[in-house]
Amino acid sequence: MASENNHFLAVCLRGAGQVFFMENALTGLLFIVAIAYASYDAGQWATTVGAIVGLLVATLTAMWMGNDKPSIQSGLFGFNGILVGVALPTFIAVSPQLWFYIIVGSAVSTVATAAFAATLTKSWGVPGSTGPFVLTAWLMVGGAYAFGSLDVTGDSARMASDYLSGAAVIPAADELVQIFFRNIAQVFLLGSAVSGVIILVGIFIASRPAGVAAALGSLVAMVCAIGMRVEPSVVIQGLYGFSPVLTAMAVGVIFLNTSGKVAVYALVATVATVFVQAAYDVVMSPLGLPSFTAPYVLTMYLFVAPKQALAPHAHKPVAEHQLHDH
Amino acid sequence: MASENNHFLAVCLRGAGQVFFMENALTGLLFIVAIAYASYDAGQWATTVGAIVGLLVATLTAMWMGNDKPSIQSGLFGFNGILVGVALPTFIAVSPQLWFYIIVGSAVSTVATAAFAATLTKSWGVPGSTGPFVLTAWLMVGGAYAFGSLDVTGDSARMASDYLSGAAVIPAADELVQIFFRNIAQVFLLGSAVSGVIILVGIFIASRPAGVAAALGSLVAMVCAIGMRVEPSVVIQGLYGFSPVLTAMAVGVIFLNTSGKVAVYALVATVATVFVQAAYDVVMSPLGLPSFTAPYVLTMYLFVAPKQALAPHAHKPVAEHQLHDH
Amino acid sequence: MASENNHFLAVCLRGAGQVFFMENALTGLLFIVAIAYASYDAGQWATTVGAIVGLLVATLTAMWMGNDKPSIQSGLFGFNGILVGVALPTFIAVSPQLWFYIIVGSAVSTVATAAFAATLTKSWGVPGSTGPFVLTAWLMVGGAYAFGSLDVTGDSARMASDYLSGAAVIPAADELVQIFFRNIAQVFLLGSAVSGVIILVGIFIASRPAGVAAALGSLVAMVCAIGMRVEPSVVIQGLYGFSPVLTAMAVGVIFLNTSGKVAVYALVATVATVFVQAAYDVVMSPLGLPSFTAPYVLTMYLFVAPKQALAPHAHKPVAEHQLHDH
Repeated sequence: MASENNHFLAVCLRGAGQVFFMENALTGLLFIVAIAYASYDAGQWATTVGAIVGLLVATLTAMWMGNDKPSIQSGLFGFNGILVGVALPTFIAVSPQLWFYIIVGSAVSTVATAAFAATLTKSWGVPGSTGPFVLTAWLMVGGAYAFGSLDVTGDSARMASDYLSGAAVIPAADELVQIFFRNIAQVFLLGSAVSGVIILVGIFIASRPAGVAAALGSLVAMVCAIGMRVEPSVVIQGLYGFSPVLTAMAVGVIFLNTSGKVAVYALVATVATVFVQAAYDVVMSPLGLPSFTAPYVLTMYLFVAPKQALAPHAHKPVAEHQLHDH
Repeated sequence: MASENNHFLAVCLRGAGQVFFMENALTGLLFIVAIAYASYDAGQWATTVGAIVGLLVATLTAMWMGNDKPSIQSGLFGFNGILVGVALPTFIAVSPQLWFYIIVGSAVSTVATAAFAATLTKSWGVPGSTGPFVLTAWLMVGGAYAFGSLDVTGDSARMASDYLSGAAVIPAADELVQIFFRNIAQVFLLGSAVSGVIILVGIFIASRPAGVAAALGSLVAMVCAIGMRVEPSVVIQGLYGFSPVLTAMAVGVIFLNTSGKVAVYALVATVATVFVQAAYDVVMSPLGLPSFTAPYVLTMYLFVAPKQALAPHAHKPVAEHQLHDH
Repeated sequence: MASENNHFLAVCLRGAGQVFFMENALTGLLFIVAIAYASYDAGQWATTVGAIVGLLVATLTAMWMGNDKPSIQSGLFGFNGILVGVALPTFIAVSPQLWFYIIVGSAVSTVATAAFAATLTKSWGVPGSTGPFVLTAWLMVGGAYAFGSLDVTGDSARMASDYLSGAAVIPAADELVQIFFRNIAQVFLLGSAVSGVIILVGIFIASRPAGVAAALGSLVAMVCAIGMRVEPSVVIQGLYGFSPVLTAMAVGVIFLNTSGKVAVYALVATVATVFVQAAYDVVMSPLGLPSFTAPYVLTMYLFVAPKQALAPHAHKPVAEHQLHDH
């Protein structure tokens, strides 16, 4: 249904929905409601305004560039833009230059989406997914430190050795529920469990298997993060769950045909994403950058890339090397 | 004219010219004059000697490897080498081991140029450009910290949180002129405005559109860096302009066919390069490494990669995945 | 001989042998003996147990995924797993979660091996080699800092500016012998010279040219590291030799057809690996991560990638760019 209505508004809403792989305008609308709820709850509207600006600019840039029309209409050039629009006001204080920054960043996310399509997807069939968002947001947040007009408020740099090991308290039952939904909300960088509920409803409206995968991904991530004894204050914010949720959906339902074997494969990928999340947090900290969805992106690329009937290079001479006899 | 004279000297001079994409021996000669002037001005000649050594070694290595002859003759295996040869003495104090280091580094820059050609260019039509220089120079400067025989003098490591935000003074008119020309000179890591004038003359001799693009790139970078309130002492050295200058030339004139649309595209790319410059400066600082032309390289790759009629991967199963039924 | 016996045990032992490119079960057995000797010598068995677990899990994962059968049988899906299994207990204290971590990490190394095959090898004929191990081990050690259940014991983070320059003592003759063999043993992260002897014997059993290349690689690395005045305490542990040893073998014997020209090429690559080793040590330090075999991996990729009859992208418009007229 949704795909037949190519009104600009519907195209943009599908762009919002594609953050969770859903080509569905109603789902996208619910996602924007979830962002707005979190803004209302926190009393700051910059993230909601940023989301809308990012979505519009990214989609319009794709139209201006003359990118593949069906892809634009299904929202594939919008989801990186909306994430850039939410992420920048989350980590940078509002100023006139911030809005200029968001506009340029959203446009760049569309260029990057086209670049990922022309490389990763063309050669290897690997989806760029939110890779362009991660790259763009890293560059923009990193750059903000050097601009007197932009004030980075979110993170502070710390070294790997600043992490403390030791006893961790297991969260109480009501906290577990909070974690479960925040794991989903944090894909949009939202700390609100209510937003997580709205988003999960949105996913179920578009696809039941996708909703189940998201819920299971959140559960697995929660168990794994607590079992490995991650700092409880970080787990409770949902920061160990959003990338695993995306991995569970992407590997288990979206990019592979679901089967028993694929379910096991997606489970391994989801657990691995928790470990990769930890690694990114530690490694990006000295650089003063958040991980965004990079843990999902890297893990998904690795798990989606393997193709049938391809062998690793054997330990014998490579063909047509420069120095071989002509 | 130049291309018909394949004397070794002409080939090397064209290698110098290709730093600004110009296949012109006279232009290359002027660039070397610009380097020599900055050496004379600063009273230290290691960068000029390094430039010549790097240019010779890189070109000779390409001949020894038997690389593509027309490419060698047009100087495409020389420009990364000359940049390695200028960069290493800029950041490392002179010692006998430094010269050994420059020779190996210049040879490696040619191997890397061939490797980039066999990957980036072969598969995606993306020019390696100064990517091999950036990679080689990062490795060599990074490595120098660990060698007792090499003393890194240029940079000192600092964390993202050491950047101060706040009021920035707008430069005076004569400073603006300095910035304009230093933005060009710093492509060769030169702090001299006079060198910038000589280089710009060299570009105009080879190509008027390229010269205009370089000048506009420098202007846009200057306005953007000041408007975003970058630390004035950094802007005045031209350190926010050299990568944008290359982006403006590469995206606006060299790698795309100039048109109104391409001009707008190049403008966005140039502004984005200023932001990417800031990001690289912040992110490379804790690692003790300069950005070199990495901001140009990354931005140019992103803006040049998008190809016609290519769609991002839709959110549906990938073909021929390992775990799909055979 | 070895290749005809496809008993699971033989397959696993060949996986061990492939760490040094040797498809030979007896060689693989000797490598495991070398690991066990170092465990015995140090009085801690976790690395040996980890090696066996990693080897088994990685090989079984490849079988479960249905990867290319001849590649599995020649051990190409085992060598990254055994390295993960040795590396994790070397840098992380033993705990129940560590064993879970090793199992997941070894499985991921096989997924990564398949992913590298489907990208690097498929498109560019570049062997993934130990790249999947390096990536997996970085993620797992990096992540361990954030897990209260895992205690990183090996490294401590330091900044580039913490490296001291200055006079370095030239090692005594008996120390030189230690360095020579430790340079080989450290490929398996072993500090024991006796283990290095056992490994070198294992290589010679499988291939005399490979053994000669390993020995020469160790010598070149030793001379180069001492000549550049690396901190003696680091050189004596063999930490500047293991990557160059692999480069000398890979570039000089395994992936290129040995010739006079290739020998010179391999020599340059080996020296470059010493410089790249220094760079990785400096750059990974602030992130709290060891270099593993990354210096070999990067250098080998660069030196193996160049292909005949390929030109770098000339400085002229790229074909079929998005913004060119359709």
